[in-house]
Amino acid sequence: MADVPSSARRTFVIDGRFVMRRGELHSPTIAYEVLGELNAAADNAVLVFTGLSPSAHVASSAADPASGWWEDMVGPDKPIDTNRYFVVCVNSLGSCFGSTGPASMEPATGSIYRLRFPVLSLEDIANAGARLLDHLGIERLYTVLGASMGGMTALAFAMLHPHRTAGLVSISAAARSLPFSIALRSLQREMIRRDPEWKNGDYHIPGPGPATGMRLARKLGMITYRSAEEWETRFGRERTTDEPPAHHPFGIDFEIESYLEAHARKFIGSFDANCYLYLSRAMDLFDASDHGGSLKQALERVRLQRAMVIGVETDFLFPIHQQEELAQGLKAFVKDVRFARLDSMQGHDSFLVDMDRFRPTIASFF
Amino acid sequence: MADVPSSARRTFVIDGRFVMRRGELHSPTIAYEVLGELNAAADNAVLVFTGLSPSAHVASSAADPASGWWEDMVGPDKPIDTNRYFVVCVNSLGSCFGSTGPASMEPATGSIYRLRFPVLSLEDIANAGARLLDHLGIERLYTVLGASMGGMTALAFAMLHPHRTAGLVSISAAARSLPFSIALRSLQREMIRRDPEWKNGDYHIPGPGPATGMRLARKLGMITYRSAEEWETRFGRERTTDEPPAHHPFGIDFEIESYLEAHARKFIGSFDANCYLYLSRAMDLFDASDHGGSLKQALERVRLQRAMVIGVETDFLFPIHQQEELAQGLKAFVKDVRFARLDSMQGHDSFLVDMDRFRPTIASFF
Repeated sequence: MADVPSSARRTFVIDGRFVMRRGELHSPTIAYEVLGELNAAADNAVLVFTGLSPSAHVASSAADPASGWWEDMVGPDKPIDTNRYFVVCVNSLGSCFGSTGPASMEPATGSIYRLRFPVLSLEDIANAGARLLDHLGIERLYTVLGASMGGMTALAFAMLHPHRTAGLVSISAAARSLPFSIALRSLQREMIRRDPEWKNGDYHIPGPGPATGMRLARKLGMITYRSAEEWETRFGRERTTDEPPAHHPFGIDFEIESYLEAHARKFIGSFDANCYLYLSRAMDLFDASDHGGSLKQALERVRLQRAMVIGVETDFLFPIHQQEELAQGLKAFVKDVRFARLDSMQGHDSFLVDMDRFRPTIASFF
Repeated sequence: MADVPSSARRTFVIDGRFVMRRGELHSPTIAYEVLGELNAAADNAVLVFTGLSPSAHVASSAADPASGWWEDMVGPDKPIDTNRYFVVCVNSLGSCFGSTGPASMEPATGSIYRLRFPVLSLEDIANAGARLLDHLGIERLYTVLGASMGGMTALAFAMLHPHRTAGLVSISAAARSLPFSIALRSLQREMIRRDPEWKNGDYHIPGPGPATGMRLARKLGMITYRSAEEWETRFGRERTTDEPPAHHPFGIDFEIESYLEAHARKFIGSFDANCYLYLSRAMDLFDASDHGGSLKQALERVRLQRAMVIGVETDFLFPIHQQEELAQGLKAFVKDVRFARLDSMQGHDSFLVDMDRFRPTIASFF
């Protein structure tokens, strides 16, 4: 293992025009990582789309020994076994970890896109993933997989490129965004936009940007990613001090406040604010029914052999009735559809932390 | 009915020192309204504590024909029938609708309290209510009642002044705040405190103050006061425009966003930001167990003849297991405890809007 981690990140350029749902880009770059080997039949590839904030670094490898965002799930002898599968994880178009997004330089102008970046949709991210498969010489995936935003993107991929995947694994995702989650994300975006340091998208890059707005948005994110039950068990009414300080009665007092502050601090500076706004909005805009007159007509497009839909009972951001709806909808057109209802306590984020439940469930598909 | 509404608001001054849980005030004013008549036996009085934001104007009367915040519930021939009951609604100590709070003048200095106001607790609000009963010559209430913060305050009153009420009605409240609701309120406070216009509490009064922070806090409040189910039915994915405007992709697009914006606008200017901070924090600090080594020991203090605890299944801010816990706890010490589990769709705010379910439930107690 190297003393200084190197990077396993690779990039490729989509040559020429890349037509988006609402606009277009010229020669965007897509960043990705691969683990394992593509077999001779080229039928063991797994394409992973990520949630809003991760990079393509899904798991450690010889090339980059740093832990990835799904370290427990992907690797040799792990549920997604890189001894058997060729795993490709893509940094979403519109993100800021190597793929072209609002924080990237626009080739035509030599200046950063910022709000000139076209309105982003999850379909665009899915299409960029398909172009990556072209680049890698993969005609048809063993499965496309994603959680949260990545699960919606994986569904978009299966609808828009039906012949390019035999399988779909959708985790804590949905066929469309509902008003409750739209309201929460809209408020997160407003927190950022109302920060005077956002400067209508023109904050200095590099630099802290609208750090206050990002901190608030991240805290709201953390609140919605977990569950009330988990926090009651974990924090209860534990205090950081015995009494609220008399002269600063609104500072950090309860352990839960200290926990949120620590997570928010870690997020600041690691994610570009405009990229966050674009990706967040793309989730709101997603509705599988756009690809047919109804969800049923849209799902009729897929040509899957197998699908697994996983939901968590304590997830209130993507409530389990949404995964049930997706699984039921797929059953009309896919022979082998499994629906896993997990009683993890950690809400929407369970796929990142409740390995006791998620490992065997994912392993059963692979 | 007068062309120009007059006011039914009355005030009285608690003479001298008013000792609070953490500090004291000198001669605070308490604002209140009354409806109906106190009978000769003085045993038909109902004391209503409010949620965080309402004034004492619970319902219209000849003196003030404007609609009150619980107009459908209180009045002649209504569930809380003012032909039979003498209803007293108190503006919480620490609020800004006539009672002394952080936006009031401090008599000793002639300047506005702001953050020099002592840390507020719901017990202080309950104690101010008891002083109001002294003033009105009411020894013992027919019942004390409240919803949300008011329900917690009503419980505090029943524990701290056990001989002064025969009944308790606690609606969508709890015996203590749990970390999920603490996290949400903490974030609302941070939205206000991070607004540069808050100026560490020294914004100009009167004036807009930290309007942006208050707008964001109100929107988060609205999100947590209702339910995902209601919004799915009510708004679905309805758009205000067909497509997101290409050059301002983060503005209002979905109906749910427009709804939140309209509610937030109404709130701005109607509530003092520092008062909001103090009241919000008081909810976090509340834990009935503080009045005994455990909730059981605390509830042993009450001397109630009857209690009704009402909870709503879609309330995720004060989840129904908290009302169940309170009802169960009271049963050990109160002969007649009724627990009503309502399947209203409107979440925490159901008591304000779902009159079809709340009217008969409340009427059954009165």
